[in-house]
Amino acid sequence: MPGGGQAGGEFSLIARYFTWPTPSADLGVGDDAALLRVAPGMQLAVSTDLLVEGTHFLAGTDPGRLGHKALAVNLSDMAAMGARPRWATLALSLPSADDRWLDAFSGGLRALAGRHGTELVGGDTTRGPLSLCVTILGEVPAGQALRRDGACAGDEVWVSGTLGDAAIGLALLTGARAPALDAAAAAACIERLEAPQPRVALGLALRGIASAALDVSDGFAADLGHILERSGVGACVEVARLPASAALAPFADDPAVREALLGGGDDYELCFTAPAAAAADVVRAAAQAGVLVTRVGRIVPGAGLALVDEDGRELPPARRGFDHFG
Amino acid sequence: MPGGGQAGGEFSLIARYFTWPTPSADLGVGDDAALLRVAPGMQLAVSTDLLVEGTHFLAGTDPGRLGHKALAVNLSDMAAMGARPRWATLALSLPSADDRWLDAFSGGLRALAGRHGTELVGGDTTRGPLSLCVTILGEVPAGQALRRDGACAGDEVWVSGTLGDAAIGLALLTGARAPALDAAAAAACIERLEAPQPRVALGLALRGIASAALDVSDGFAADLGHILERSGVGACVEVARLPASAALAPFADDPAVREALLGGGDDYELCFTAPAAAAADVVRAAAQAGVLVTRVGRIVPGAGLALVDEDGRELPPARRGFDHFG
Repeated sequence: MPGGGQAGGEFSLIARYFTWPTPSADLGVGDDAALLRVAPGMQLAVSTDLLVEGTHFLAGTDPGRLGHKALAVNLSDMAAMGARPRWATLALSLPSADDRWLDAFSGGLRALAGRHGTELVGGDTTRGPLSLCVTILGEVPAGQALRRDGACAGDEVWVSGTLGDAAIGLALLTGARAPALDAAAAAACIERLEAPQPRVALGLALRGIASAALDVSDGFAADLGHILERSGVGACVEVARLPASAALAPFADDPAVREALLGGGDDYELCFTAPAAAAADVVRAAAQAGVLVTRVGRIVPGAGLALVDEDGRELPPARRGFDHFG
Repeated sequence: MPGGGQAGGEFSLIARYFTWPTPSADLGVGDDAALLRVAPGMQLAVSTDLLVEGTHFLAGTDPGRLGHKALAVNLSDMAAMGARPRWATLALSLPSADDRWLDAFSGGLRALAGRHGTELVGGDTTRGPLSLCVTILGEVPAGQALRRDGACAGDEVWVSGTLGDAAIGLALLTGARAPALDAAAAAACIERLEAPQPRVALGLALRGIASAALDVSDGFAADLGHILERSGVGACVEVARLPASAALAPFADDPAVREALLGGGDDYELCFTAPAAAAADVVRAAAQAGVLVTRVGRIVPGAGLALVDEDGRELPPARRGFDHFG
């Protein structure tokens, strides 16, 4: 709000912590807007995510991991579209300008951005409750994006990596119901929660192969539900096939783990569909991206998600994923 | 944070309040990312702004005006670049999902977006302290953007509209020092604060004429300072020429008004420079855009902003604009 203060603070914050070389931008941080050039024949993919303390992350979360996660959840949206991430903007609301916190936060963000060739081209910092809003811009060859509305009956349903780790990590941090993991397994789950690895390479490799895709942020069942709704189809998923990590696999019968596999959010794996005839291509793409993929079910005519056991018997409706205004 | 709740709320919020037709997008709200096509020969201009309750606006601000303002401050960045606004994303953190509030907020946003041909193509809603983050995307013919770094000695300094109204409006709302305005004048100042009109048409008309430009959000003196710093020049501004509205003109000698003219933020006028030989072009462009412009000073070699009286005598350094971490 106008009305007081001295120039220098906000601008030096941006200059000190959030102004990195942006060779692929015509103009980066420091003007009223960044100026970018989208390559000919490319569509621009745009997504925005807001992380709020107390809603999306716990107070006291390691700032380096928070910087990582603020960008990771957006990179994951690019992965889910099969888009190559190019640029990002950051709007940061902070209760106070703490140098150590900012240094760690910007370091986490910058390291992940560097690994994915993503340049921070704009920002806004302000005083307020801790929250982070990243908008990401990526490129995808026109017509090749992995949308949610392309799944067809007969396609198979796949998921990358492992599910449920982040939800169990959160349960461990908050004292909610969780299996008795050893220290290393617990740390692995908490790392999945706090420093998820977006599946950008897999998304790129699945162009031309997957018929629909999204990232698992609200929980597998809820997110697959979005594909079904947008595509006007149903799905049948064999619950026992849902991939569990080495940390969680020994507890696959624990109700908290079963629930986390189906409904736990924040894993940022990709859930996608592909024609049955393309299964070998899927496996090849995953190998190329260095990511495990698991076939967990199939798309069927109709609507809704049926969960079945190994003998094809339907299980009771899964609890749905997390929703902030449910 | 994952861990509970029912699907439907967040998604129906977006569907109900923030999903409008987006004919110029290849894919709008509802997938992992929007898909857009930037016209050949155009640079993409990108800017993000975060508005936080208690920092950028008062608790209890009319939601329709807040929806307007959240977009207006971003449209103003496009104006300042000479870019045509095309698309926007909204990330909204809300303490609760109040239908009346959301209806008014989205209505204010949508009305302004419609007037400027800007489509909302993505969003994120979450529970948390009230804050609004809009990222805007615009197009400008390559090389024609109005940057901050193009001012040259000999150029003249111009400002659009009138200054200081928003700061006086804020003073009236908060009980700070303000002149004794009548009810209509007070309402006009508060409207400038709460529902600023971005100078998009003027920014477009100044392409090829202005040598540098930005929008006045932190206060005239501070913002002109950014042009001077980026351009490596100084400026000499005649304070008595700073344009005051009909509401404030009768109080031009009031210290609060003098301070508001020089240092008041949130007016979202354009401050720009142009060669002296282009003065007639500036006036023509302003007339075409239907906006008043005033020549208030000139760019000089060196650095820093000198404020002078009508006889060219230097005044004491102005108080600087607002800064959130000053």
